Amino acid sequence: MEISSLGEFGLIRHLTGEIKLKNDSTLKGIGDDAAVLSYKDKEVLVTTDLLLEGIHFDLTYVPLKHLGYKSATVNFSDIYAMNGQPRQITVSMGISKRFSVEDLEDFYEGLKLACEIYGVDLVGGDTSASLTGLCISITCIGEASRDRTVYRNKAQNTDLIYVSGDLGAAYMGLQLLEREKAIFAGEKDFTPDFTGKEYLLERQLKPEARKDIIRLLDENGILPTSMIDISDGLSSELLHICTQSGVGCRIYEERIPVDYQTALMAEQFNMNLTTAALNGGEDYELLFTVPLSLHEKTETMDGIKLIGRICEAAEGTNLIACDGMEIPLVAQGWNSFL
Amino acid sequence: MEISSLGEFGLIRHLTGEIKLKNDSTLKGIGDDAAVLSYKDKEVLVTTDLLLEGIHFDLTYVPLKHLGYKSATVNFSDIYAMNGQPRQITVSMGISKRFSVEDLEDFYEGLKLACEIYGVDLVGGDTSASLTGLCISITCIGEASRDRTVYRNKAQNTDLIYVSGDLGAAYMGLQLLEREKAIFAGEKDFTPDFTGKEYLLERQLKPEARKDIIRLLDENGILPTSMIDISDGLSSELLHICTQSGVGCRIYEERIPVDYQTALMAEQFNMNLTTAALNGGEDYELLFTVPLSLHEKTETMDGIKLIGRICEAAEGTNLIACDGMEIPLVAQGWNSFL
Repeated sequence: MEISSLGEFGLIRHLTGEIKLKNDSTLKGIGDDAAVLSYKDKEVLVTTDLLLEGIHFDLTYVPLKHLGYKSATVNFSDIYAMNGQPRQITVSMGISKRFSVEDLEDFYEGLKLACEIYGVDLVGGDTSASLTGLCISITCIGEASRDRTVYRNKAQNTDLIYVSGDLGAAYMGLQLLEREKAIFAGEKDFTPDFTGKEYLLERQLKPEARKDIIRLLDENGILPTSMIDISDGLSSELLHICTQSGVGCRIYEERIPVDYQTALMAEQFNMNLTTAALNGGEDYELLFTVPLSLHEKTETMDGIKLIGRICEAAEGTNLIACDGMEIPLVAQGWNSFL
Repeated sequence: MEISSLGEFGLIRHLTGEIKLKNDSTLKGIGDDAAVLSYKDKEVLVTTDLLLEGIHFDLTYVPLKHLGYKSATVNFSDIYAMNGQPRQITVSMGISKRFSVEDLEDFYEGLKLACEIYGVDLVGGDTSASLTGLCISITCIGEASRDRTVYRNKAQNTDLIYVSGDLGAAYMGLQLLEREKAIFAGEKDFTPDFTGKEYLLERQLKPEARKDIIRLLDENGILPTSMIDISDGLSSELLHICTQSGVGCRIYEERIPVDYQTALMAEQFNMNLTTAALNGGEDYELLFTVPLSLHEKTETMDGIKLIGRICEAAEGTNLIACDGMEIPLVAQGWNSFL
């Protein structure tokens, strides 16, 4: 079905018609000049992400349903990284003529699934034609208990550095998809065999936000001194924490958590595994620091790994390699402008 | 200067480095995973707009500084339309290679000027390369006093219908710019003579949001029963109010406020003036309804005009033409998908 047959208002009604609001903080969702929320004694968190076709995603191998899911979860991840809970999102889309109503249904299916799983209300947005490609802008609003918001700038000397899950898999998933795209270039049916590499693909195409880690920290009475989500790679994010907190760090190569599939793929691609884990990006894991005094509590927690410690700024920001060498961390991250 | 020479983080620092936060409700602006706000006993309003080059603006004749200003004020307008005050915005941009750092400085100059004038903090965003053109997504967060948020769905039978300012000028400004663009097509220096048409251009290129009207209503103790801002034309917006409130309306052609320059231009273009005023769009005036009992208060207010009244749904939604004919209102509005 062509989008023009519905028009903007018709399209919005079609895609968002049966949405039910879940959160007490949502007073009014879609349908007025603005959504109306009520946060009372909570702090309000706001984060936003822009996703552009050809820059952030390639629809040759990214299913629209997965893209909808990922567009939502990457925003939720930013809210969790403040020790908050995502509650609402607005979704704006610029859509070129090559997309059908069914395409947008797929995208919204993924979006709604993520909202359902993470308990978030879709409360507004803007929908427009675009001259070229798909443009997605999502803003997520969340809540944090007063005085329990965790920033990037409060890491202290001697704090322990933890990371959740494992790193580098999303990057390896991307390399894999790009390789297969090149191999299948020009062919109509793009059905490579990804057996044994499912984890890498899932990490790239359908990442989860670490709601579970935030709950676990809370249940264990742990309030991190600083926290950030890993979207641009461990090095880049750890340097953000160190710069903003005015401290240094030492992390240990042997402690960086990497999945078996990631390691295998790095070998196949003849890539340095540590580089992929440090700079790969799109992991959406949480990186956080806790006071040394909480060590007994954190060491029993599942799903997180101690990778190093905060030191004084004068000691620098270094990786201690497996052979004992000290290597300064560099924020390679990702620069879309290059 | 090329944007790639600064990179994403460098560019953000360059453009937003000296921003000072003005509002008590802003606890933390740019620089973490999310902005942190505090709204306590206020209701939180959230609105978002997507502006795409070639769809919403044409940089042949739109200066980037004006575009920055307008991108902000059109969002503020949505917050005022809820009887709220805008407090924060996030600004996401996708930028193609043809833009320089200086171009973005111009855009941000306009954006910051609007924030300064309207008392709004710039608290976050996302900046990325784009493959083609400029893509702007702005989310505005505002506050409303509890139980004083004004929706679209509470207009009542016998309410009076008011509109602020005048209508159709922004549309005429657009026609004028498009005509001159066609005349000067291919020529390098695009300097047509707009003497006597300044108002039309200003309404199109640098619209204001009606903060003054919201203050005036408050000072006069008037809480509208319904309100909406006019972005898609009077007809379309009035039909939103009537549909959502389950009422009808009668408005009078002779009462629709139109500026002298708009009327003159419509004549030159051989266009129907009332059609331009009803369907032109981008006026960013406020359309609202007040109980008949408040008539004595509203009739002395400057800057607003009584254009008709709400009636029962069964009586329809009609324009009473100057010759007495009843003409059903049609939501022509603007469909970017056509």
